[in-house]
Amino acid sequence: MFESAEIGHQLDKATYKAALPGLREQLLECQLELLERGDTAVVVVIAGVEGAGKGETVNLLNEWMDPRHIETQAFGPRSEEEKERPPMWRFWRALPPTGKIGILFGSWYTAPILDQVLGDASDAELNEALQRIRHFERMLARENVLLIKLWFHLSRDTQKKRLGKLEKDKQSRWRVTERDWQLFHKFDRFYQVSEQVLRETSTAEAPWHVIDGTDHRYRSLTAGRLLLDAMRRRLDHLPGPPTTPPAPLPQPALDGRNTLNGLDYSLSLDKQGYRKALAHWQQELNRLSRDRRLRDRSVVLVFEGNDAAGKGGAIRRLTAALDARYCRVVPVAAPTDEERRQPYLWRFWRQLPRHGHFTVFDRSWYGRVLVERVEGLCSEQDWMRAYSEINEFEEQLVDSGVVLCKFWLAITPDEQLARFRARQETGYKRFKITDEDWRNREKWPEYERAVCDMVERTSTEYAPWKLVPANSKRFARIEVLKTVCTTLEVALSVR
Amino acid sequence: MFESAEIGHQLDKATYKAALPGLREQLLECQLELLERGDTAVVVVIAGVEGAGKGETVNLLNEWMDPRHIETQAFGPRSEEEKERPPMWRFWRALPPTGKIGILFGSWYTAPILDQVLGDASDAELNEALQRIRHFERMLARENVLLIKLWFHLSRDTQKKRLGKLEKDKQSRWRVTERDWQLFHKFDRFYQVSEQVLRETSTAEAPWHVIDGTDHRYRSLTAGRLLLDAMRRRLDHLPGPPTTPPAPLPQPALDGRNTLNGLDYSLSLDKQGYRKALAHWQQELNRLSRDRRLRDRSVVLVFEGNDAAGKGGAIRRLTAALDARYCRVVPVAAPTDEERRQPYLWRFWRQLPRHGHFTVFDRSWYGRVLVERVEGLCSEQDWMRAYSEINEFEEQLVDSGVVLCKFWLAITPDEQLARFRARQETGYKRFKITDEDWRNREKWPEYERAVCDMVERTSTEYAPWKLVPANSKRFARIEVLKTVCTTLEVALSVR
Repeated sequence: MFESAEIGHQLDKATYKAALPGLREQLLECQLELLERGDTAVVVVIAGVEGAGKGETVNLLNEWMDPRHIETQAFGPRSEEEKERPPMWRFWRALPPTGKIGILFGSWYTAPILDQVLGDASDAELNEALQRIRHFERMLARENVLLIKLWFHLSRDTQKKRLGKLEKDKQSRWRVTERDWQLFHKFDRFYQVSEQVLRETSTAEAPWHVIDGTDHRYRSLTAGRLLLDAMRRRLDHLPGPPTTPPAPLPQPALDGRNTLNGLDYSLSLDKQGYRKALAHWQQELNRLSRDRRLRDRSVVLVFEGNDAAGKGGAIRRLTAALDARYCRVVPVAAPTDEERRQPYLWRFWRQLPRHGHFTVFDRSWYGRVLVERVEGLCSEQDWMRAYSEINEFEEQLVDSGVVLCKFWLAITPDEQLARFRARQETGYKRFKITDEDWRNREKWPEYERAVCDMVERTSTEYAPWKLVPANSKRFARIEVLKTVCTTLEVALSVR
Repeated sequence: MFESAEIGHQLDKATYKAALPGLREQLLECQLELLERGDTAVVVVIAGVEGAGKGETVNLLNEWMDPRHIETQAFGPRSEEEKERPPMWRFWRALPPTGKIGILFGSWYTAPILDQVLGDASDAELNEALQRIRHFERMLARENVLLIKLWFHLSRDTQKKRLGKLEKDKQSRWRVTERDWQLFHKFDRFYQVSEQVLRETSTAEAPWHVIDGTDHRYRSLTAGRLLLDAMRRRLDHLPGPPTTPPAPLPQPALDGRNTLNGLDYSLSLDKQGYRKALAHWQQELNRLSRDRRLRDRSVVLVFEGNDAAGKGGAIRRLTAALDARYCRVVPVAAPTDEERRQPYLWRFWRQLPRHGHFTVFDRSWYGRVLVERVEGLCSEQDWMRAYSEINEFEEQLVDSGVVLCKFWLAITPDEQLARFRARQETGYKRFKITDEDWRNREKWPEYERAVCDMVERTSTEYAPWKLVPANSKRFARIEVLKTVCTTLEVALSVR
């Protein structure tokens, strides 16, 4: 990958000066068009060798374009806040909305490369990290993010000279750290690892571009031109519906039996049994929530279910046992304007709890494979790829220490009808039943199919679905509490 | 993944019989349409638990459709021939051409799953295998292969009963082997590993479909319906140009310098020095080619270069030192009809040498990123993804023990002109110069750019490009021989 970047490219001053005005003008034009179109976000990843002019280039790009529509982010060591979330959390936070350009100085590549160079990570860990990156970048590409990855390179000798020169000058001495020299002594290893990383993450959607960082004019103009060319081509491309040929879709079982209609809906609890069990499990949950071992863990609870299945009631029985300061319920409805300008998982990433905290999602990221699928709010390709994107997301949660429970509260069509009618008749509950509920009800078979596919494709070893027959509210509430307690118990004892 | 398949689905005889005629008729219709359209191949992967009716289903599918247009392949232990090639070789060989249906009984999934279950493979090895599979299947999808992956499942209890029943019956006793029972005792592990494998290879392009194998009517009709639905949807989908938004393209260096024009074209050898060197290196190559250590290795040499750069001459000096029985030169021109009906790498896979053999490619798989790119014979998406597909291909070669050298013979435009003219003037060489050569020459800058991108993106640690300045034929020939010898020497001493 570094063949061309070691030639020693340079540009003379006159050529540079002559090219600059045109480049700047066109960059500004593109920026404006991007903003007006508002359907694409641009992410520029700046990476490479220390001393190869990454910082200068970031500054120049900001100078050349309108900085109001650029979001530049530099990533140092992870903050306390960030350490309490999965490693990718900080990068999700930094994604620019559509219409904007995000310049990332340091990125999801920094840690995998350095960990490998400094010997903290095994080959297997590197491979896993690269796999995650490819997955992440493919998702970005499909969510209308234009990803431009620039690698600034220096040969070994040039880097040595560069660091020496910076160190000699009083003005720039602060920029060269002990760590830079430490890394320089591992140059060959760094070269080898970066070559592998660049190769294995150069995909058709998001290829790397290696820039010779020796000459400042050459590298700046090259970076500017690459950015311009990529934006121009994307803007000139009229987005049409994706014409990927259809893949085989999941089909409902021929005998009509499925994981939902196979549940035992007659399970129930009498009032007295319920009261006793409720007291017991709430006490248990309260005890667990104050467990010392939860101090460096967090809890995410997902509630999905049929309309009127009793999600709200189950959630209230749960939160009643928890300290409100450490527990947040997130009701998920249609995305906000801000959320619409980001990849669909973004709005859930932003809600992830800190250590010691509970987040309860009342509906969740599963909307994509449920309502969005059934109502045609996203393309078939979108919901088909969502299964693996969701699995990957949940794996990251669990890997980083999150205790995760997912509930589907299931009721029968008859029970739903009875509850809808009861709601209409009870004054203070009337707001809970809308025309949309009735419309959804008409699509019962489509929803049922979507739920079965969801369970089938996202019930994983690390994040299984708990299907709760909820014709009896009492039974369902206790099932939920019990499941949360036992999952917590197991998770806390494992670590 | 197995939730629904453990419910115990079944179909009564009447329902089955009623559905069958319609299904068969529609399957036949699809098969005919597929054949007539001739732009898509269908691959059905049949996998799952032993005793779940995989074999019966394969037979039924052959019975229901026109077997003349079905290619059914079963994969047992690897043959001697197959062991001498990379593991994926046997599956490339088995791919059906467009218009046909290939049914694969056993597939690229068998070994990774069993190796993991039986404890022969580490987690890292499994992950690497899955990564390779995803890459392979994505390539298939983009090369117009419709991939339908069916997993036949049985619960633990059902499998036990099934194996017992088969064993009791004299007629079917042969079907239950020691190994089946051995695997049965690892059922839980098998369940766990398959669940992981299915999850991590269920992509939007090629999702898995899990079928309950308990009841023969249910499983057969389900498999038939899935196949029908997938083919129908694909056939109804009118293929248009892919509208994937453009990714940032590689750009030529702003200062006009590159890896090609930076070569020293003045390097040459006098006649006497050449003769001496030629004798020396040919002798050396001959010695190496008879080395015992080459008995379980093979050699692949790739020659690319400008028109009239002297590829033919260099190849002849090389083969002159080799035993013709163990050396084959493959001239690569436009693909044959048969080759056009396969993914583009297929025609190179089929030429891979056995152990102890040399294959010399006179032009190669790099055509896709050179002539096909420059002449617009494939889409931008196609050649952009080819870089990583090629790297992956070469990694498989090297991993399996192939010694690989890649040469780019480079001449300057002036030298080419002189050689073209000389060819036109020499009677017996006139056939070597065509109008096309002159046309290609006019596109010198485009070709140069494509070559530089190719070197940059496919020169890897395991398969680096050797750029040979070839204005002096003598110099170039010796460089080639020397490089082959030293590469062989190193490769043989490593293992």
